[in-house]
Amino acid sequence: MPAAMPELAFSSALSSAALATRYTQVRQQTEAICRPLLPEDTVVQPMLDVSPPKWHLAHTTWFFETFLLQQYQPGYVVHHPDYAFLFNSYYNSLGSRVNRADRGTLSRPALAEVYAYRAAVDTAVHQLLDARANALPASFYELFELGLQHEQQHQELLLTDIKYILSTSPLAPAYQPAKAVAASSAPPVTWLAVPGGVHTVGLQEEGFSFDNELPAHPVYVADFELQNRLVTNAEYLAFVEAGGYQDFRFWMGEGWDLAQREQWQAPLYWVSGPAGWQRFTLQGLQPLELAAPVTHLSFYEADAYAQWAGARLPTEAEWETAARYFQPDVAEGNFQESGLYDTRPLAPTADPARCHQLLGDAWEWTYSAYHAYPGYVRAAGALGEYNGKFMVNQLVLRGGSCATPASHIRLSYRNFFHADKRWQFTGLRLAR
Amino acid sequence: MPAAMPELAFSSALSSAALATRYTQVRQQTEAICRPLLPEDTVVQPMLDVSPPKWHLAHTTWFFETFLLQQYQPGYVVHHPDYAFLFNSYYNSLGSRVNRADRGTLSRPALAEVYAYRAAVDTAVHQLLDARANALPASFYELFELGLQHEQQHQELLLTDIKYILSTSPLAPAYQPAKAVAASSAPPVTWLAVPGGVHTVGLQEEGFSFDNELPAHPVYVADFELQNRLVTNAEYLAFVEAGGYQDFRFWMGEGWDLAQREQWQAPLYWVSGPAGWQRFTLQGLQPLELAAPVTHLSFYEADAYAQWAGARLPTEAEWETAARYFQPDVAEGNFQESGLYDTRPLAPTADPARCHQLLGDAWEWTYSAYHAYPGYVRAAGALGEYNGKFMVNQLVLRGGSCATPASHIRLSYRNFFHADKRWQFTGLRLAR
Amino acid sequence: MPAAMPELAFSSALSSAALATRYTQVRQQTEAICRPLLPEDTVVQPMLDVSPPKWHLAHTTWFFETFLLQQYQPGYVVHHPDYAFLFNSYYNSLGSRVNRADRGTLSRPALAEVYAYRAAVDTAVHQLLDARANALPASFYELFELGLQHEQQHQELLLTDIKYILSTSPLAPAYQPAKAVAASSAPPVTWLAVPGGVHTVGLQEEGFSFDNELPAHPVYVADFELQNRLVTNAEYLAFVEAGGYQDFRFWMGEGWDLAQREQWQAPLYWVSGPAGWQRFTLQGLQPLELAAPVTHLSFYEADAYAQWAGARLPTEAEWETAARYFQPDVAEGNFQESGLYDTRPLAPTADPARCHQLLGDAWEWTYSAYHAYPGYVRAAGALGEYNGKFMVNQLVLRGGSCATPASHIRLSYRNFFHADKRWQFTGLRLAR
Amino acid sequence: MPAAMPELAFSSALSSAALATRYTQVRQQTEAICRPLLPEDTVVQPMLDVSPPKWHLAHTTWFFETFLLQQYQPGYVVHHPDYAFLFNSYYNSLGSRVNRADRGTLSRPALAEVYAYRAAVDTAVHQLLDARANALPASFYELFELGLQHEQQHQELLLTDIKYILSTSPLAPAYQPAKAVAASSAPPVTWLAVPGGVHTVGLQEEGFSFDNELPAHPVYVADFELQNRLVTNAEYLAFVEAGGYQDFRFWMGEGWDLAQREQWQAPLYWVSGPAGWQRFTLQGLQPLELAAPVTHLSFYEADAYAQWAGARLPTEAEWETAARYFQPDVAEGNFQESGLYDTRPLAPTADPARCHQLLGDAWEWTYSAYHAYPGYVRAAGALGEYNGKFMVNQLVLRGGSCATPASHIRLSYRNFFHADKRWQFTGLRLAR
Repeated sequence: MPAAMPELAFSSALSSAALATRYTQVRQQTEAICRPLLPEDTVVQPMLDVSPPKWHLAHTTWFFETFLLQQYQPGYVVHHPDYAFLFNSYYNSLGSRVNRADRGTLSRPALAEVYAYRAAVDTAVHQLLDARANALPASFYELFELGLQHEQQHQELLLTDIKYILSTSPLAPAYQPAKAVAASSAPPVTWLAVPGGVHTVGLQEEGFSFDNELPAHPVYVADFELQNRLVTNAEYLAFVEAGGYQDFRFWMGEGWDLAQREQWQAPLYWVSGPAGWQRFTLQGLQPLELAAPVTHLSFYEADAYAQWAGARLPTEAEWETAARYFQPDVAEGNFQESGLYDTRPLAPTADPARCHQLLGDAWEWTYSAYHAYPGYVRAAGALGEYNGKFMVNQLVLRGGSCATPASHIRLSYRNFFHADKRWQFTGLRLAR
Repeated sequence: MPAAMPELAFSSALSSAALATRYTQVRQQTEAICRPLLPEDTVVQPMLDVSPPKWHLAHTTWFFETFLLQQYQPGYVVHHPDYAFLFNSYYNSLGSRVNRADRGTLSRPALAEVYAYRAAVDTAVHQLLDARANALPASFYELFELGLQHEQQHQELLLTDIKYILSTSPLAPAYQPAKAVAASSAPPVTWLAVPGGVHTVGLQEEGFSFDNELPAHPVYVADFELQNRLVTNAEYLAFVEAGGYQDFRFWMGEGWDLAQREQWQAPLYWVSGPAGWQRFTLQGLQPLELAAPVTHLSFYEADAYAQWAGARLPTEAEWETAARYFQPDVAEGNFQESGLYDTRPLAPTADPARCHQLLGDAWEWTYSAYHAYPGYVRAAGALGEYNGKFMVNQLVLRGGSCATPASHIRLSYRNFFHADKRWQFTGLRLAR
Repeated sequence: MPAAMPELAFSSALSSAALATRYTQVRQQTEAICRPLLPEDTVVQPMLDVSPPKWHLAHTTWFFETFLLQQYQPGYVVHHPDYAFLFNSYYNSLGSRVNRADRGTLSRPALAEVYAYRAAVDTAVHQLLDARANALPASFYELFELGLQHEQQHQELLLTDIKYILSTSPLAPAYQPAKAVAASSAPPVTWLAVPGGVHTVGLQEEGFSFDNELPAHPVYVADFELQNRLVTNAEYLAFVEAGGYQDFRFWMGEGWDLAQREQWQAPLYWVSGPAGWQRFTLQGLQPLELAAPVTHLSFYEADAYAQWAGARLPTEAEWETAARYFQPDVAEGNFQESGLYDTRPLAPTADPARCHQLLGDAWEWTYSAYHAYPGYVRAAGALGEYNGKFMVNQLVLRGGSCATPASHIRLSYRNFFHADKRWQFTGLRLAR
Repeated sequence: MPAAMPELAFSSALSSAALATRYTQVRQQTEAICRPLLPEDTVVQPMLDVSPPKWHLAHTTWFFETFLLQQYQPGYVVHHPDYAFLFNSYYNSLGSRVNRADRGTLSRPALAEVYAYRAAVDTAVHQLLDARANALPASFYELFELGLQHEQQHQELLLTDIKYILSTSPLAPAYQPAKAVAASSAPPVTWLAVPGGVHTVGLQEEGFSFDNELPAHPVYVADFELQNRLVTNAEYLAFVEAGGYQDFRFWMGEGWDLAQREQWQAPLYWVSGPAGWQRFTLQGLQPLELAAPVTHLSFYEADAYAQWAGARLPTEAEWETAARYFQPDVAEGNFQESGLYDTRPLAPTADPARCHQLLGDAWEWTYSAYHAYPGYVRAAGALGEYNGKFMVNQLVLRGGSCATPASHIRLSYRNFFHADKRWQFTGLRLAR
């Protein structure tokens, strides 16, 4: 595990000093992610799903200002009266806001003003922690923790949005210098059996979780098998070369129509050139690393690959059952802290009886809709909009990716995207 | 049960003569549904989801021609070489076809030619049944049955599409004369307990089913309660009048955005006028029948109502578990054969311990994604496209409606639509 | 001139009986045009510019009802209170109306009801003419004439809309049996000189004109030359085969972008097949008649052809100057009354010193914007919307077409369409 | 006339040293315009018509590189192989290019790289001027002049695009500090008579012009009257307050539909608040200056105002005839060099017999389509695309604006925009 990784510890259990340290760590990590960017890079929005980095920097700050400072700091005056309009993401409870499609049209406030906003809010949060350390209610600590977890979610989005932003230029600019990873072939695929039965799914540990992981509840799962590692670029390339993008039989209907309309021929960021397949990465254009996990797949592509391979995607209950069965070590995962972003082949000698890459490397598409768990209750007020209102029309992904902070992931963690989204580090693992 | 209802009997068990009779019954019912229409009514397509009745008449015929006559009648020559292009719905396996959005731009072939097409195919099917009665393989009978079930699905679509077509005119034309239904209040709501456990879901009976009902498989369901009848117009009206369409807190985010954009104020077909609420029906504009089940709701509206009512929608596993527990009698349901279409209040004296309206009256939105059952296998060839390629991004509805043929429904029957669709006879029942 | 052609005579000069005869002639001609149609053909709207024939039949009737009966017949009660909403075309003065894009979604009122509407209004108009013959003011006669001219405009639109409607079916149905026209080559092209100077443009004769032809006014025109006949299919085919649709240099920028987006390869209705080029016509699919004038060109195509041919389109002032100089005989023109629709090659021996086809055959695109003439005044009230509000963003076409009634055309007549429109009988003549 | 204004002198008449000076002046002025911007401001594209300032900086440079350096500097190697793709505006002759709608999604090349590109090209141009001073053909000087004039056009676009970019932020940032202008009321309106006849329109002077001003040609113009100054904000406000935006009678049909759809209530940038009407300006939000000319009108609004005022817009021939008759002094105009941008009321004592503001202040919409002059010939090669392919569907504006360089305007200068465009400094003057 990288030395810099902050401990996974729920806020309410920590001292004020420890809270302040943790807060600083998370907030600084966000700025560290943005440090290689030019001001120009921080304002554009080349597609609707992407937000400008400047917006992320401000929105996460607005979150602390709105949910902590305004509620717990008596007499707090907002940094700027227009920022709620500019940096509210989707909370109807908190009033009107910039149309999402227009985030990339706003050059102002300038990047420097956004950093000043961050600094002002950071100062105020530290003052609040210092001054009212003993007077803060339990709800404060929950929101404090939520603010940090929220910021970590945006750290991952920042990395994927930056990747997309840089990818749109024919100059193929690099976000970071290429990092050498030992060339290797992936270990051979094996199928690992997981015993079925009525298993419990959802958060069962101490500590923070999002409300969408609650309540833990029993689910019947039949016996099944799961592959011992993620599908690799080499394996996915075989699908591409076998004409998988030209054969409707493997595809969901809506996926096929979209793939035709958008003329998909391979995963996002794959570029076919005279020197063979390349991928646009955060290190610029690089040769396709065959042993690394395939990423930047939509659900449609992941599912079509599985159909072609004569297998299927796991459900999220299967995935979590397997994860609880194999108990992966988060310290072995390829996470944000490793700084490798999307490029970590396993050692070819990896133990064939172990289940690799369950945590980190790539989010794994499941064949489960993102719905509320039985007994789920939406919170009152604005935070009821955090997760609950998205619980239809999306699919669950599990396990975290190379852009997820290691301290942010859990076996019960539910990520979710629409079936057509490709700009996250999304891959797959086969089940049967 | 109406006298005219055909028996629910799987084709392969019947004699050729009985098959011929059943075929004739189903095919004639389709034409009976279209009989009140003018030629003008049969060509328009006022929204993408609706198909012109002329198209339905031809498409169901093309289905028999393509899957039966072309495969089992040696030397069969298609009725017209362009009809495959014109009347293929969505089978990529069977070649290119008219863009769905353009179905309503085609005045030709004329309605009379489509009826001639129907007659020619009917004659050929009867000849096939007569001549090769003993020489037809089992697969023929499966496809024959599928063709009939397919036509029954289109009978329901015809009724809902006709309703939508007629609704677009300010003249509010009636499809049929109004049918008197005894005025009544609905019986009081009760909550009925259903015991949980690992239950089996999916087809467990003899006879026909679609492949999406297979295989039967165990599902864990917790104890739950279900209301004894469908939500009524009166109950839904209370939600409308309480400002339910103006309060985002009850709504899924995508539903709220859609409702704002489309300015929804009530279910589809509700019209607010000086004399209070009216509904456009197949009998023209009629007063809102308070005791009748609410219909023409999107999932978003059904779900928002449930949130507002402090309850929730059942999952499809819960629904089927309850249905198998209560064993509703199909003969009591309000189906196509009753000809009442959307207007059947229960007797106010209905037994409060019984679960009413599980079959017929209105499709019940569930909070379950329309996904493949565990172990589901897509068929090879064109019929693999019948259901399998739609198994993402939609939600399951259960129980059949007033427009469903009684002989077409089963406890395991899975209907499915996108969350925004409102033109079917879709309602809800609360769970908790 | 065909025997059936009504006399071109301004209404106010005629007796009531003559008016009644003329009214009947025009109204019957509209119905004669629709007689070959099936009811199904009369409701569809395969593109925004096209209106369903049923709509034309009703709208022209609504015009008489609104502008004549409601104003001059005391106590007149409208035929149906919803028809103003349904059949108002674009008069803001006359209230809200069906969205133009939705005209093809309305199956009701039925075609038969529309004919009943026509009959009722016709009866009322005749009664008005009979009963109040001596009491009607001059304004009545102007509106009466306008109603007839308006109906004639819709006769032409009916023919072009019917053509488009039938063209969308792969069955390529024929509106009428093919009419034999003597095969011929076109006469050789010559350039005819027209002397320049300050010429008067606009209506200078007695009788009816639309307000857009007024006032007559002087225009300076330099000496120029005009071709002696319209550009033929053979000539245009040479442009197609020379790669004219693949060479941006000949095209206006917006035209080129459109042609790329819509993948234009030839004029509308041209179909390239194994047997060479064919055209969809009102007689179904027919071989391309090389000596006939090219039609169904957008302005962009006409202009690109002219660029390619090293010439240009005339301005409307040039066209009218030439027409007044050559004084074409309307009786020689190919008009609606000939029933040939788009297919009239000239005799190959046509006099090379005469200017042919100035009237009839095809509307000639000019390179003149459709703007108000100097001194033009919009009428007060609803009729101010008849022409005036369209006087920007369109181009003028001159001379009438094979679908124009001969009695409807004049040397000063200004037709106008946007540069991208192709479904009218639009062609060109070169100038230099 | 401001001291800094470069002389209007055609390049071919100048020495190499004078050319170099002039080149430097123009190029530096572009950069001076961009100096107040943050890097963030230079990348966004809040609407399709606007280009990011960074793009303008690069595109104008690409123009010199492509048309001068690549053609006249033997062995010249382009600065970057991707820049032609990135910075070609619309020249099909010069290959594929970034979709216009995507200009605002490109953060790279960075602003600093674009300035380096400018510097490199400037160095190369100076070297070319130095080294080959006596060896350059006449065509070089024409292209050199065109490059400068082209850059001046983009200077005006830069100012209007910057204004639009800054306007989208609720922070209403100022591009420059407010400049005090003596408060005043406008001089009273008078109507000035201009004698008609056959007048010559188009370039008749020595020196540079765009090809769209050629050839000079006779036009017949009737006697007319023109107002002695531009319409003011006060006059236009009276139209707004009289309900002009709610009364379709004054509007062209397409303008009315657009105004309804976009909910126009006043000119672009007008904001109604508690303190009355304000305007967003390059100095931020400012009170509406009543005596200043109204700007940021579409043609539709200018025309509707004229209709309401019982007058009309002049044609471009009338405008040029009047301008040649009144011979305005460019030195009295409010141009880019004054730095006032959109805010120059005339002295209230202005001579009522003189025609003011014909040059500078605001582009004046004419009621003339932007068409080729009789005898116009498109140049061969890429420069044939400079003007010719736009000569349809747009309207002519005359006289230059407060953002036009004074050295760039001429009496024969033809600017052109679509009727719906509002982001330029566009106003009007009445004719009758």
